[in-house]
Amino acid sequence: MTLEISSEMLDMGRRARAAAQVLAMAPAAAKAQALNAAADALWTQREDVVAANARDMAAAQEKGLSPAMLDRLALDEGRISGICDALRTVAAQDDPVGQIITEWDRPTGLHIARVRTPLGVVGVIYESRPNVTADAGALCLKAGNAVILRGGSEGFRSNHAIHAALVQGLRAAGLPEDAIQLVQTTDRAAVGDMLRMVEHIDVIVPRGGKGLVGLVQREARVPVFAHLEGICHIYVDASADADKARAVVLNAKTRRTGICGAAECLLLHRDIADGLGAQIIADLVAAGVEMRVGAGLQHLPGVAAAAPDDFGQEYLDKIMAAAVVDDVDAAMAHIRQYGSQHTDAILAEDDAVAARFFAGLDSAILMRNASTQFADGGEFGLGAEIGIATGKMHARGPVGAEQLTSFKYLVTGDGTVRA
Amino acid sequence: MTLEISSEMLDMGRRARAAAQVLAMAPAAAKAQALNAAADALWTQREDVVAANARDMAAAQEKGLSPAMLDRLALDEGRISGICDALRTVAAQDDPVGQIITEWDRPTGLHIARVRTPLGVVGVIYESRPNVTADAGALCLKAGNAVILRGGSEGFRSNHAIHAALVQGLRAAGLPEDAIQLVQTTDRAAVGDMLRMVEHIDVIVPRGGKGLVGLVQREARVPVFAHLEGICHIYVDASADADKARAVVLNAKTRRTGICGAAECLLLHRDIADGLGAQIIADLVAAGVEMRVGAGLQHLPGVAAAAPDDFGQEYLDKIMAAAVVDDVDAAMAHIRQYGSQHTDAILAEDDAVAARFFAGLDSAILMRNASTQFADGGEFGLGAEIGIATGKMHARGPVGAEQLTSFKYLVTGDGTVRA
Repeated sequence: MTLEISSEMLDMGRRARAAAQVLAMAPAAAKAQALNAAADALWTQREDVVAANARDMAAAQEKGLSPAMLDRLALDEGRISGICDALRTVAAQDDPVGQIITEWDRPTGLHIARVRTPLGVVGVIYESRPNVTADAGALCLKAGNAVILRGGSEGFRSNHAIHAALVQGLRAAGLPEDAIQLVQTTDRAAVGDMLRMVEHIDVIVPRGGKGLVGLVQREARVPVFAHLEGICHIYVDASADADKARAVVLNAKTRRTGICGAAECLLLHRDIADGLGAQIIADLVAAGVEMRVGAGLQHLPGVAAAAPDDFGQEYLDKIMAAAVVDDVDAAMAHIRQYGSQHTDAILAEDDAVAARFFAGLDSAILMRNASTQFADGGEFGLGAEIGIATGKMHARGPVGAEQLTSFKYLVTGDGTVRA
Repeated sequence: MTLEISSEMLDMGRRARAAAQVLAMAPAAAKAQALNAAADALWTQREDVVAANARDMAAAQEKGLSPAMLDRLALDEGRISGICDALRTVAAQDDPVGQIITEWDRPTGLHIARVRTPLGVVGVIYESRPNVTADAGALCLKAGNAVILRGGSEGFRSNHAIHAALVQGLRAAGLPEDAIQLVQTTDRAAVGDMLRMVEHIDVIVPRGGKGLVGLVQREARVPVFAHLEGICHIYVDASADADKARAVVLNAKTRRTGICGAAECLLLHRDIADGLGAQIIADLVAAGVEMRVGAGLQHLPGVAAAAPDDFGQEYLDKIMAAAVVDDVDAAMAHIRQYGSQHTDAILAEDDAVAARFFAGLDSAILMRNASTQFADGGEFGLGAEIGIATGKMHARGPVGAEQLTSFKYLVTGDGTVRA
């Protein structure tokens, strides 16, 4: 990549920066009004959106996209209703900007408050899901940020139609239309430009497959909130409750196999491998999961022997690796070696064992007696999420409006001077 | 810079990463014990430290370092006592690791807690002040991070002596000695290595002059917490109290002129320029400050006319620019154009005007009726600071132990599955 950035993208960046200055001062009510008006507009124009999506779908089918990709791209009235709900949910949330995070007094007489501010300009680079246009636009606006959206070429017309509704919402609320901009080209050079626009974009959020996210993480000069993979592990301790363990593991693997919170590897405590462990594997096999198992489990019916590279795999499919471990420490060692610090879970009734798991691992999300499929901004109560981050800088886990903010210190004295 | 990293630095990085794993689980008491023991050791060995420093000072004098640089480098018993106090203060602070930042329940029955975790490995690159060795080491340890310290060549022997005391503290508390490593070479290539060690260093903190910080900001592939300049502005509103304004401006400029929180530019509301404004400028001139003033002030005694590039200057000296502005909005426009988003202050009794200033500017620190010289981690109550950041990602303002942490989500269910 060269250091040159196209004039079109630079212009978008400058307009985003200018809009961000206005948004930073925008009243909470105006931002909420814009989102509600956008939901109204989107619902009113739902037939146009479905029609635009139909043209995207036809082109995608012609290009031979996989059924899974086509499903992600598809919009119908039900999905548009869901997008409208998400817009209204974000509108109804507390506005993070101006919130006092913490405040205290000093012996000097100074009062210090740490107050939330917008981050500035967010760049979102995404693939086929058109709902990202609305979710990302809404969350960025809520946090007082301008956003530059760059959707995949497959969803070009759908994204356009949704973006038009968002702009109508901004206009209705008297907010700058440049607050939510959609890149008007499918030229891939625009992605490279965004990754290098350090003067105009404060953070990049990639949403999509490993190819896209890996590219962004490698090439970006702008900070990135992302996760490359969700290699989620689920460890069943000797102290696990059998019913809970069976229900949770089955749900974690099979509810939806294609999401980043789907469990990919089952770890069984040696003491329960033959009993509860065998039962859990039988449940999974019965549910159509291809089980690739390590030593000590290969005698079980319907399983296949795991190859070494089955550990550390993100299948995103009805496939699961499984291994026997000596205890919680061995489970943690396995997860440290093969996991992706996204979401890992323990099934255990023993509080000390669960506490050890929680303290000893450093995944963005750790779960006890709960399905890894809850790794989701909506399920966390954030209303929507712009993505899930596994990095440790600034944002981590499901990224909602609050994590799209920064802060500043407001210090008040009374003619106070430093000695 | 090439992408190759020397084997010595890679080895330090690997050892730091391993130490960080241990530190992340270290009890708060052990970390506090290590810091108190380090203070004890440093005090016991103070004569050795002063002797090591004397050799650094002699070499620095031979090299012709400026008096200001020599003053920064110098250690005596008083300064060592101050370093010991800082170590004990950090030891006595609340341990941030494991703190619950926030927690909530979900309708699904899940309990979600957001809990502080260490960041990992911090790299600190600094110039002449040997106290940074102790301050940075202490804050990183408190936050459960390993640290790689790279001090300037002038302070090589002093830093070594202080580092030895820190390692004795770690040893006394049974913590890994690799938790606080000091680069054992003055080869500048080590700095370049650190800036590219994305696998082994999670964040770089540069402490020093604009040359060093600029280099780090330009070249680092690792995230950076820093400020390039402190071009602090102080605006005197028409509603300012005269006594407070005179005291605060004089303190903000003259208490210490060489620190990043020193005021560099005075903005006067048109209505008070001739009265209170003239008085403030007379105070500054009387205190020996060279005043470089804009239109409307050049008739005042003892002032010089400002050149255009006097605005946006970080003098770090007894020099100050001054200008007349129409109102608070004009003051904010000036600050946005010429400031560095470090610390800016308003003198105003009018609450609405002060609120407008606080809302409309986006400096890391905004002050009302208080001296910009309070822009300091100690004055904020952080015990010590590893630096002041003007970026908006992760850390901002004075960076203490808390901002050297990340977080993870701990989610507890009871066999909870996602619908």
